[in-house]
Amino acid sequence: MAQTAQRPREYGIRFGVLPTGPLNAITDVPGVRVGQVTLSEGQNIRTGVTAILPHDGNQFQQKSPAAIYIGNGFGKLMGFSQVDELGTLETPIVLTNTLSVPTAADALIDYTLAQPGNEQVRSVNPIVGETNDGSLNDIRGRHITKHHVLDAIQQAKAGPVTEGNVGAGTGTVCFGFKGGIGTASRKLPASLGGYTVGALVQTNFGGVLQIAGVPVGVELGRYSFKEKLDGSCMMVVLTDAPLDARNLKRLAKRAFMGLAQTGGIASNGSGDYVIAVSTAYRIPHETANPFDELKIVRNDNVSPLFMAAIEATEEAIINSLFAAQTSVGDQGRTVEQLPINKVIDLLKKAGQIR
Amino acid sequence: MAQTAQRPREYGIRFGVLPTGPLNAITDVPGVRVGQVTLSEGQNIRTGVTAILPHDGNQFQQKSPAAIYIGNGFGKLMGFSQVDELGTLETPIVLTNTLSVPTAADALIDYTLAQPGNEQVRSVNPIVGETNDGSLNDIRGRHITKHHVLDAIQQAKAGPVTEGNVGAGTGTVCFGFKGGIGTASRKLPASLGGYTVGALVQTNFGGVLQIAGVPVGVELGRYSFKEKLDGSCMMVVLTDAPLDARNLKRLAKRAFMGLAQTGGIASNGSGDYVIAVSTAYRIPHETANPFDELKIVRNDNVSPLFMAAIEATEEAIINSLFAAQTSVGDQGRTVEQLPINKVIDLLKKAGQIR
Amino acid sequence: MAQTAQRPREYGIRFGVLPTGPLNAITDVPGVRVGQVTLSEGQNIRTGVTAILPHDGNQFQQKSPAAIYIGNGFGKLMGFSQVDELGTLETPIVLTNTLSVPTAADALIDYTLAQPGNEQVRSVNPIVGETNDGSLNDIRGRHITKHHVLDAIQQAKAGPVTEGNVGAGTGTVCFGFKGGIGTASRKLPASLGGYTVGALVQTNFGGVLQIAGVPVGVELGRYSFKEKLDGSCMMVVLTDAPLDARNLKRLAKRAFMGLAQTGGIASNGSGDYVIAVSTAYRIPHETANPFDELKIVRNDNVSPLFMAAIEATEEAIINSLFAAQTSVGDQGRTVEQLPINKVIDLLKKAGQIR
Amino acid sequence: MAQTAQRPREYGIRFGVLPTGPLNAITDVPGVRVGQVTLSEGQNIRTGVTAILPHDGNQFQQKSPAAIYIGNGFGKLMGFSQVDELGTLETPIVLTNTLSVPTAADALIDYTLAQPGNEQVRSVNPIVGETNDGSLNDIRGRHITKHHVLDAIQQAKAGPVTEGNVGAGTGTVCFGFKGGIGTASRKLPASLGGYTVGALVQTNFGGVLQIAGVPVGVELGRYSFKEKLDGSCMMVVLTDAPLDARNLKRLAKRAFMGLAQTGGIASNGSGDYVIAVSTAYRIPHETANPFDELKIVRNDNVSPLFMAAIEATEEAIINSLFAAQTSVGDQGRTVEQLPINKVIDLLKKAGQIR
Repeated sequence: MAQTAQRPREYGIRFGVLPTGPLNAITDVPGVRVGQVTLSEGQNIRTGVTAILPHDGNQFQQKSPAAIYIGNGFGKLMGFSQVDELGTLETPIVLTNTLSVPTAADALIDYTLAQPGNEQVRSVNPIVGETNDGSLNDIRGRHITKHHVLDAIQQAKAGPVTEGNVGAGTGTVCFGFKGGIGTASRKLPASLGGYTVGALVQTNFGGVLQIAGVPVGVELGRYSFKEKLDGSCMMVVLTDAPLDARNLKRLAKRAFMGLAQTGGIASNGSGDYVIAVSTAYRIPHETANPFDELKIVRNDNVSPLFMAAIEATEEAIINSLFAAQTSVGDQGRTVEQLPINKVIDLLKKAGQIR
Repeated sequence: MAQTAQRPREYGIRFGVLPTGPLNAITDVPGVRVGQVTLSEGQNIRTGVTAILPHDGNQFQQKSPAAIYIGNGFGKLMGFSQVDELGTLETPIVLTNTLSVPTAADALIDYTLAQPGNEQVRSVNPIVGETNDGSLNDIRGRHITKHHVLDAIQQAKAGPVTEGNVGAGTGTVCFGFKGGIGTASRKLPASLGGYTVGALVQTNFGGVLQIAGVPVGVELGRYSFKEKLDGSCMMVVLTDAPLDARNLKRLAKRAFMGLAQTGGIASNGSGDYVIAVSTAYRIPHETANPFDELKIVRNDNVSPLFMAAIEATEEAIINSLFAAQTSVGDQGRTVEQLPINKVIDLLKKAGQIR
Repeated sequence: MAQTAQRPREYGIRFGVLPTGPLNAITDVPGVRVGQVTLSEGQNIRTGVTAILPHDGNQFQQKSPAAIYIGNGFGKLMGFSQVDELGTLETPIVLTNTLSVPTAADALIDYTLAQPGNEQVRSVNPIVGETNDGSLNDIRGRHITKHHVLDAIQQAKAGPVTEGNVGAGTGTVCFGFKGGIGTASRKLPASLGGYTVGALVQTNFGGVLQIAGVPVGVELGRYSFKEKLDGSCMMVVLTDAPLDARNLKRLAKRAFMGLAQTGGIASNGSGDYVIAVSTAYRIPHETANPFDELKIVRNDNVSPLFMAAIEATEEAIINSLFAAQTSVGDQGRTVEQLPINKVIDLLKKAGQIR
Repeated sequence: MAQTAQRPREYGIRFGVLPTGPLNAITDVPGVRVGQVTLSEGQNIRTGVTAILPHDGNQFQQKSPAAIYIGNGFGKLMGFSQVDELGTLETPIVLTNTLSVPTAADALIDYTLAQPGNEQVRSVNPIVGETNDGSLNDIRGRHITKHHVLDAIQQAKAGPVTEGNVGAGTGTVCFGFKGGIGTASRKLPASLGGYTVGALVQTNFGGVLQIAGVPVGVELGRYSFKEKLDGSCMMVVLTDAPLDARNLKRLAKRAFMGLAQTGGIASNGSGDYVIAVSTAYRIPHETANPFDELKIVRNDNVSPLFMAAIEATEEAIINSLFAAQTSVGDQGRTVEQLPINKVIDLLKKAGQIR
């Protein structure tokens, strides 16, 4: 299902000025794992689940510092307020379709209650993001089951992340073309801390597509205002930089700026959320120590991380478009993939590929 | 199950200075209906569902102006961001226990998709609040089903609202005593608009209980700091005053001040949320009119409504305590009801009952 | 000018359950200093300045962790966004009247630029809070000069804090009676960390006054709704507990709950702000260390601090009313002080004084 | 002082897809006036004031619906909380340098108190934004006086707006080049309401400059990460679309996305604020009508306005760079203007100018 084509960078497209990590993926952040389950069945089911696990321990017992930024809140993300209040993440992050958020949240509760060491747990804050794949997918059929979600978590692994029509991106549409899952990363030089910032996105939104600055959407004649392109983008940003929740929220906001760089407009109907998590340290659920003892990046030193989040998010979005393939779905609706050859031509003309 | 005892006001206790509505209940707001399903089975199931319906139309097609205020965000309320972004409520409000939020949300999606007129609906923002009844209730067992939730919605009716160990309040604990569902209302004089403000609460929190100002918690020897009293409070405020989402959010914040008036401290572990809704007008899901045409209360005139929200919430909380009855639950844990006779004595001594 | 009468606690009134610090003042937090300049001249000038200094070092070079909570934003507090973004305070806190905020802010810039060590400083975030004393004071005359502000800072000292018609409270009105400056503190037992929380308030707001729970406002026949009682409250909370900005914001919100305990309603016209600062550690403006190394109170342990903030703020507000004296001001307007003897009688009747 | 060179659009550069208003300036919004005072004296004074007046009535008596969005809060903007709470603007908007905010605020109070009809006004919420021109300007000298501010207001007029080294942009630096004041506008077609959205910016920030998508900053070898480019951007967005405060805040956030489009990164030290105001209706300070009667754009119809705000802000920022001229300032520091010929060459090569 997922496209085997080259990633934009392999064509020579550059995004920003910072170097990528080795995989140019969220999994460049050490310890991070991604699992995906794709449902592409019959004519009408085009949906799935993508799970992101910040570390391989018990996430509930060893919470991660985290923040959620709401770019545009027309969405159903679950779990916002507790992360915002306490600054911690206590479950894996799951992405799926809009109407399957409760199912995914329920599965995360199952998962957490069943984990060894969690026998006394009676409160869980499941984190589930979504976009609406209701154009290609029979979303009203709610075909995601708890089993799919648990499966995605179970399968989570390090290494390359499949992009395009996969997992929670199976049925999404972006800038009028087939969207999907995309990922990218940045690695700062040692002089700036040597940190990695990774992004994973589920692209399902509209605007005026630009790639490496070239107004591809205009050139291809498909853009918001000319036609109605609406929708949402879920963004997940992980980093091994030791940031506290306050600076993670600022980092999350920069991912939203990366979305803006691609020409996204955060239209009225958009549910644009960024979940940012640091893997650099953990907050134990229980401990005899009355204090959290932290060694966190000073405000003065966060700007390179901000740049990294912008660039990685921008590239992850474009990666999702390059990886996605034409899909025929519910009621025979067809969403074409980005015409990559044309795009490459446009970028060459613009001198953005040499 | 629910207590048939007198309500505090019948003992002569007064809360504030504004007159109540005829029922002293959220259902004094015209058109508002409440439905409750109580699960009290065997030794270990003490939980339930409370549903609040702002109007009897199709809530999705005829959205209500709404806002959500987060007092303390250690909770799992679902639906925050869309209400915050768009200022509207598109489903009934459902309250239940912490781990059953996904089930309740799923049921609200079922309910909405199935409603006549909603055949094309592919996005729903279910609003579910919760507190954690995991002390009396086997919460890990997740005994709430979608059927219970749909039942609560179905049964919703105008008129008196049962308080105490009922619906979502079946297993809750407040100030160390049995908590539950409570409700109250205020009606402004015609000179101030004649509006009604109604509150319904699910009480499950701690602090230093005071009733009509009398420090009952101290007198009874039960209060936070002496013992660990934690937990949450869900508050729902409805009004027929034509407020927009901005002023509804301000109104919601005043309900949280009503909680403060009872001695609640919004401890670290508290999930304190207020959902405020106006029934005075509706925002159609679709319409040919490109405008919303509103006639809303000016900022200058909202203060009496603020007072009403504070008073109604304070009284609703105390009402929940007076109505609640001693409960024995999971693993034989017992939570005593408020010793009403002692409380009345204390209030008489303090001159608060004459 | 300031009242020499007894403080409420000396009459036997109790507020909450936690012990006070030795002075029952914000200056119980070690290192904290307060300076006040009172302008009471002729018939029309009733205003002043109150300055709070968290530590005796260079506040710009050694910033304090801080947060600002906005209870109701109808006010002119200056400096919010930088504190909210960066989590630090870099000037003393100054309180004054509404129309003198710019003058006070300008003075804080003077102060900071002139301080040894700040020769290269080209950006300062002055923190100035205010309430409107325009009833007793000829506020349009803007009688505060930079000199007054610098003077208040200069005079800042540890030890007892004068309350009532003093400094920024010279011309304020609270619950229809003469308001002013008030202060109080709480000291947690060693088992809960042994921390001190101190509050200082500038009281100028309305509602239905209750003292130690007794509805004094109703008994005295003066309360919002019966008459129009509007206005604002500035609250400053300092603590030696090592909290980060996130938990300081939560602490600040609890001070607002203390205001609710006194019967304040945060009316439409109210500017209710809380500035919370920790003195436990400092964030250097410049340092070779790329990290902030912190040892901060865990979320799990903040609840007693929350209680302390609620109680100290409640008591500080009532203290301001007991200390304030009848004042005749601009255009002969008279604002009576709280009739303390009557209040004491009421409290005795209610059993709140024994 | 201000550059007389061509504006980017005259070179054939296009920004987005929407048509501009006739002047491509904020003054395309009917009734809006702009006044600027430039201080360029001796070697060290490079600063000024820019005032924006939404309408020609008494702004205090006839408030405008408004919102402020904080992109990154490391700044000193004054007036945030009251606008956020009440949704209205009651003074002209003034932009100046960081350390002159109090002076400008004081001048706005002078202005408001002195206006006929405001004799009873005792509370004013002055709105002042700033960026830090402390590189070219002797900012510590605080050379702005109240007279300069009042002058800017007095001179405000409709028609073309001078861009570049003028007013509050006299001493600013953007992407390492001379920044300044810029403006642009968009006009929606009648089918989308026919509304105008105008932006005015004070550019003083860093990142990786891109113009119409071309990574000019990289090509010119000047960008954040390679060198330290920090700073802030003030953005003002006006529209004649009838939006309420909630949707104005959403509109304001889109202006920040326009900043992202230019390659701005909202670095740690950035104070990025957007003030959004509708001129379509006014909220009277006092009125016998207890209601605001509004006819406002529905959520469903705001997306084209969002696009307009993104595009106008992006273009306004680039306009500021094209208009700005090399400036020598304090201590002989020189900031070069954008090398326009080189930029045009780069854009031609990229096919962005034909």
